[in-house]
Amino acid sequence: MLNDATDALARLLPDGVLRDMAPAYLEEPRGRYKGRAGLIAAPRTVDEVAAIVRACADARVPIVPRGGGTGLVGGQVMPDGTAPLVLSLERMTAIRAIYPEEGVIVAEAGATLHQVRDAAAAVGRQFPLSLASQGTAQIGGVLATNAGGVNVLRYGNARALCLGVEAVLPQGQIMHDLKRLRKDNTGYDIRDLLIGAEGTLGIITAASLVLAPVPAETGVAMLVVDSPEAALSLLSLAQARMAGGVTAFELISGQGLRFLDAAFPTLRQPFADRPDWLVLIEVGLPAGLPVDAALEDLFTDAAEAGLVSDGVIARSGQQAADLWAVREMIPEANRHIGAIASHDISLPLSGVARFIRDCSALLAGMADLRINCFGHLGDGNLHFNLFPAEGRTRDPYDGIRRDLSRAVHQMVVARGGSFSAEHGVGRLKAAELAEWGDPARLAAMRAIKNVLDPAGIMNPGVILA
Amino acid sequence: MLNDATDALARLLPDGVLRDMAPAYLEEPRGRYKGRAGLIAAPRTVDEVAAIVRACADARVPIVPRGGGTGLVGGQVMPDGTAPLVLSLERMTAIRAIYPEEGVIVAEAGATLHQVRDAAAAVGRQFPLSLASQGTAQIGGVLATNAGGVNVLRYGNARALCLGVEAVLPQGQIMHDLKRLRKDNTGYDIRDLLIGAEGTLGIITAASLVLAPVPAETGVAMLVVDSPEAALSLLSLAQARMAGGVTAFELISGQGLRFLDAAFPTLRQPFADRPDWLVLIEVGLPAGLPVDAALEDLFTDAAEAGLVSDGVIARSGQQAADLWAVREMIPEANRHIGAIASHDISLPLSGVARFIRDCSALLAGMADLRINCFGHLGDGNLHFNLFPAEGRTRDPYDGIRRDLSRAVHQMVVARGGSFSAEHGVGRLKAAELAEWGDPARLAAMRAIKNVLDPAGIMNPGVILA
Repeated sequence: MLNDATDALARLLPDGVLRDMAPAYLEEPRGRYKGRAGLIAAPRTVDEVAAIVRACADARVPIVPRGGGTGLVGGQVMPDGTAPLVLSLERMTAIRAIYPEEGVIVAEAGATLHQVRDAAAAVGRQFPLSLASQGTAQIGGVLATNAGGVNVLRYGNARALCLGVEAVLPQGQIMHDLKRLRKDNTGYDIRDLLIGAEGTLGIITAASLVLAPVPAETGVAMLVVDSPEAALSLLSLAQARMAGGVTAFELISGQGLRFLDAAFPTLRQPFADRPDWLVLIEVGLPAGLPVDAALEDLFTDAAEAGLVSDGVIARSGQQAADLWAVREMIPEANRHIGAIASHDISLPLSGVARFIRDCSALLAGMADLRINCFGHLGDGNLHFNLFPAEGRTRDPYDGIRRDLSRAVHQMVVARGGSFSAEHGVGRLKAAELAEWGDPARLAAMRAIKNVLDPAGIMNPGVILA
Repeated sequence: MLNDATDALARLLPDGVLRDMAPAYLEEPRGRYKGRAGLIAAPRTVDEVAAIVRACADARVPIVPRGGGTGLVGGQVMPDGTAPLVLSLERMTAIRAIYPEEGVIVAEAGATLHQVRDAAAAVGRQFPLSLASQGTAQIGGVLATNAGGVNVLRYGNARALCLGVEAVLPQGQIMHDLKRLRKDNTGYDIRDLLIGAEGTLGIITAASLVLAPVPAETGVAMLVVDSPEAALSLLSLAQARMAGGVTAFELISGQGLRFLDAAFPTLRQPFADRPDWLVLIEVGLPAGLPVDAALEDLFTDAAEAGLVSDGVIARSGQQAADLWAVREMIPEANRHIGAIASHDISLPLSGVARFIRDCSALLAGMADLRINCFGHLGDGNLHFNLFPAEGRTRDPYDGIRRDLSRAVHQMVVARGGSFSAEHGVGRLKAAELAEWGDPARLAAMRAIKNVLDPAGIMNPGVILA
């Protein structure tokens, strides 16, 4: 696959960084984009990353940084243009240091999220960011996409959990900013500019991350609510009672439960009648407050307020895991059914319930379809996914897929929401960002991209098309 | 004070925005810098701010954005160069909206921190950022400096509490990004770039801010510890027990208590013998966990572990306020004694105790002086302030003040700390940032400044000298 130009570039790279071409370096999970590459490089040190970036900048060869490759918006592949160098962080996997007493871990970009979470647990702390893909997703990618997940409500997105980064900027400069400080106001927030930039402004090679204390008591319940409105009132009540101790607050729809029935007929669901709406709540509480009692009291209050009609409280770790399994198998069930279109959206919390109603009505007027709306309700973050009507295939929807998605995103934007909540923009939503982003903000983004990456080599086509 | 150039500029400004020159617009609290101004403008709307910025950009007249003026690093005054336009946010004080159920308030930049905290309290929520200057400090300045305060341990700095901003960029473009979303990944984090930029990249005119639930139970205790090491072990223990419910964790030294004796002889202190080290801890807990019992259990465990030797737990709101008064009057006592030099530093938590010991020893070798080390220990943020030896005045120290500060900051930087933890860089520390900042990070900062503010009109001399 080498041509003269890539051959010349290959000779400029540090010894031993090149890897054989393999399909895995060119793939993304949903198969929407086919990646291409002239070279695959897997550096072992930040100095090697810098040398590769300098060589590519000189040769004007694009770089596609690659972590675990689990991103869902095509940010890890480059289907068009000059064949890029794919820079895999797979060899930079060290946990460089861990400081249990200060609640900090310093990990290299190629460490998986699972590896960091394990290292934290081994010293009696937790790294609270949790994703379905955590066995494969790497810290560098988690930061580059400012990933979210189920614990954002309490602990924040990836950005909120990062105290410092080491990174290679687009002209090969190494930025040493691996601080472990909770307060540091020494100029512009370059760290947060790299976080969420999806590899277009540089390559994060290591990060210092926040470890949180493990709550003395943890409990999980699944509660039946009449509506998303009731779910949000329940959240308010829970937050008031728990002093911010609500760790996760997930919404599940009856449609999701019926998809589970179809995909996993043997999965035991907690409610025989498949209610229209369920909430999965997890709380982490101080010592001295029995979590069962706290959840029972919450249930009693919520029932008196007419917010919940039924519920189960996990009485063991196994029961808690079983309740979580119901939530976590929904994406798999969705794949089994086969979505027409998926949407990773967020809305101001007080507009979520009305959005679900209004958007469902709008779509019902456009096509006969099923909606599985689920996700991180506590963050206002919904996965609003569209499926064929019962007994139909996806094909008849091909012609309107784009219109359906556009209708969803237009309503989201009109109501102050985001069409890219936790998965990033990547290639998939670059055109929508250009259309719907605030012009002054977009102009600032373009100016920053041009000045930091004048050769335009860092992950071109991602975020800014 | 108008000359021809400012006269010409004045004619280009929106009607009615000019204010009479008044000394208050040219001052900063410590009197280190004397401000100058050609014009004072106080716009009422974001459009007026934009018009002023465009006029100044065209005329190449610098702009000094001004909030409450309480900053301690000279960021609100411009002593040299072309006389600037001082742009005061004093007329943009509206609370534009408040959403108790989603935990969001939208406030204009000129609203005081106190005003925002009051508005939150009126709907049963809290805006957790709390500063001594909150009656005067304005939201715009709080964000521009990424202010900290006593509740950062639990709720984060200003940055962590801001979901969106409306801002005028240096060429007069209005950035509309007043989102109220917990998850939004739509490109580069321009918001966090403006936060902490101290008015050098634009003017924040409004912000959407996070309101937190008010904990069901709040308690305060003051505990005697042997050493900062013991204090940090106590913090670890408290965090583990309280599931992250520790709201504030402040260190007070015996020197501070003796300064309080000198400055406020009638102030009742909780411990007659003026211990070497005290910790003030505040916790906010869920419903159902009596806070007195939780603090007593913490004390018992800590005493058994040899971490604390004495303590008082506030039994009423008044007692809690009295304990806080001991902490909050220390800066006033310091002013009464008269500091040689003050340092707003932070360190990795596990290095704080050794730093206090080593730096005290280093300074003792340089001069006969007293150190009052106090502050936000939970954040690793110390105010490490130097005072003349008993019975001496400040004058004899004039010749070595600079050397003393340099010694403190050098040790801080060598140990991975920050010489600017929560007050910002301003003019005061711009030279130190240029000297000690990471070169790649500084280069990125300068590139961003130059490309976003090509005329160099936004608060010149601040952060980047």
